[in-house]
Amino acid sequence: MKLRVDLAGKSHSYDVLIERGLLGSVGKWVSSLWAAQKIAVISDDLTASFYAEKVMSNLDKAGFDASLFIFPSGETSKSIATAEAAWNFCAAQALTRSDGIIGLGGGVVGDLAGFVASTYLRGIHFLQIATSLTAQVDSSIGGKTGLNAAAAKNMIGSFAQPDGVLIDPDVLATLDERCLREGMGEVIKCALIADAELWDKLDKMSGNDILDNADDLIAYAVNVKRKLVMEDEFDNGSRLLLNFGHTIGHALEATAGFGELMHGEAVSIGMVQMTRAAENKGLVKKGLTDKISDMLHKFGLPVSYEPWEPGKIYQSLMHDKKLRGKTIQTILVTEIGKAEIHPIELNEMMDYLKK
Amino acid sequence: MKLRVDLAGKSHSYDVLIERGLLGSVGKWVSSLWAAQKIAVISDDLTASFYAEKVMSNLDKAGFDASLFIFPSGETSKSIATAEAAWNFCAAQALTRSDGIIGLGGGVVGDLAGFVASTYLRGIHFLQIATSLTAQVDSSIGGKTGLNAAAAKNMIGSFAQPDGVLIDPDVLATLDERCLREGMGEVIKCALIADAELWDKLDKMSGNDILDNADDLIAYAVNVKRKLVMEDEFDNGSRLLLNFGHTIGHALEATAGFGELMHGEAVSIGMVQMTRAAENKGLVKKGLTDKISDMLHKFGLPVSYEPWEPGKIYQSLMHDKKLRGKTIQTILVTEIGKAEIHPIELNEMMDYLKK
Repeated sequence: MKLRVDLAGKSHSYDVLIERGLLGSVGKWVSSLWAAQKIAVISDDLTASFYAEKVMSNLDKAGFDASLFIFPSGETSKSIATAEAAWNFCAAQALTRSDGIIGLGGGVVGDLAGFVASTYLRGIHFLQIATSLTAQVDSSIGGKTGLNAAAAKNMIGSFAQPDGVLIDPDVLATLDERCLREGMGEVIKCALIADAELWDKLDKMSGNDILDNADDLIAYAVNVKRKLVMEDEFDNGSRLLLNFGHTIGHALEATAGFGELMHGEAVSIGMVQMTRAAENKGLVKKGLTDKISDMLHKFGLPVSYEPWEPGKIYQSLMHDKKLRGKTIQTILVTEIGKAEIHPIELNEMMDYLKK
Repeated sequence: MKLRVDLAGKSHSYDVLIERGLLGSVGKWVSSLWAAQKIAVISDDLTASFYAEKVMSNLDKAGFDASLFIFPSGETSKSIATAEAAWNFCAAQALTRSDGIIGLGGGVVGDLAGFVASTYLRGIHFLQIATSLTAQVDSSIGGKTGLNAAAAKNMIGSFAQPDGVLIDPDVLATLDERCLREGMGEVIKCALIADAELWDKLDKMSGNDILDNADDLIAYAVNVKRKLVMEDEFDNGSRLLLNFGHTIGHALEATAGFGELMHGEAVSIGMVQMTRAAENKGLVKKGLTDKISDMLHKFGLPVSYEPWEPGKIYQSLMHDKKLRGKTIQTILVTEIGKAEIHPIELNEMMDYLKK
């Protein structure tokens, strides 16, 4: 399946390919997009242990001069220090502006490799091979890159679109259980904000059918994200809907310590907390919180976190990218498949953090 | 005088204001562009010692909540470490996406502050107050930002346009002699690549008239740069002409050690070396090298460097941003006011490094 992301202006359009077994023809895919040239493949050690050999030999056979940069897997690697090592690696390989970087991995790899590609020599070509469910359904689409700083997740970053995204659902077989379930956080979010049909599908699934349904789930989720990104590439309007659960989620990731909670888990908790508070205020349908909570629970996602420290979470919110001055653009799902931007004053946010 | 930089797509258009005494009405200028909000002013200690108090109190009176981040002056501060400190400063000030950064200083400040602004929260607003001649005639225009890495000057960076540029020629009075003369490197370059009228003006000037003629020189140079940037924002065609003298110049800055040679001095040497080699090959008008060399000499710029180490310079060229694969887009001035892109194979570059 091929889904196109059509963008205007500086940002070029590109295709997202979704197909089982695609990883076996990486060289062919890259050849269809780039002339033979130097490539730096950036990956984490875990992903690389499964797939680097296959990808590198495939690129080699296709005539590319590819080298591999590996860093330790995990959210704590999404740092300035790793970016610096990657920039220097690209320089040591003498990559020029007509060369390219391929990110091979999940969200951390995509965000980091994308940022490095968008800033090395003021930007070189970039492709992403998304290997985690979270990356396949969410982070590989839309051109957001980022590094974490002590103060906030993704505090440093850029908007930079790739030349293409490759998604092979077969690679999910090597994900551990927790990583697979984590990815369902963003899938359920997509259903909640924009796709009641996807919600029905999820409703009919058992919580253990993720791998069998992966192709379908990915296509649904990519489609939701693709549409919102095409409407609003730079996050000033409808794209913000994708942040449902993320305001509290990101703050929770930072306060819990990066790597403690996985991104999809934090978003899961954020969606439930946000909806419960909104339901208590009478802003959304009665019973919605339980519905959402049950669905997340079915797929093995956490819906609460201990210790729950509203004061700390509030402090972390000060660095939210959805903040404009003192106004924060929170997202409410009012019923399944419908979301809206709900701007509130930052201090009102304390109401939404109460248990 | 107001010169407009009109850009399509993602990059917005903006005005460059050039007028003596403008620094005294900074608050008014910022108010005309931004609503009252938080501002981080980024400056180096030397510039700040002259102008920070004036700028900060002016912004304060205009109702802005402005804070000041200062780093040690000099090219060695254009580093990842300084950028990291600046990102953290913005976070500590809780700047949001609707807030902005103002760079107050020369080329180093502009490149660094611009990069930080383009990557903090994936990009916030940016204004530049250019205080060195090099910044006023060259680096503040066109949206190139950058940090140096050990391997190469400006190895890390972005294309990110400011919301406006303020140029007050009066501030040049506090520049030391060497910094003022350095700025003439880019002015003479502009004349050479695109403006024979400016060349005639320079020809008639004495080498000690820079300050008196500053308004005019800045307007001429900004106009040359503005036109080329509007034609080719992302450096794939005619904008490359601005790099005359820069291929060898950047390599020389890196091999001499950042801060040893000033940028304009290195460009001066680069222009003469490039033209001499081209003249020896019969590619440009006979006698052109002497003409260029005499003009640079008149304004106190160096035209050669010792020790001259072609092997080292060649190694550094491998990281040139004008390199595409093994082809380097060198720039030749064929006669006064006319330049062309002259693509050569990297190894042929050794010919251009011979004395």
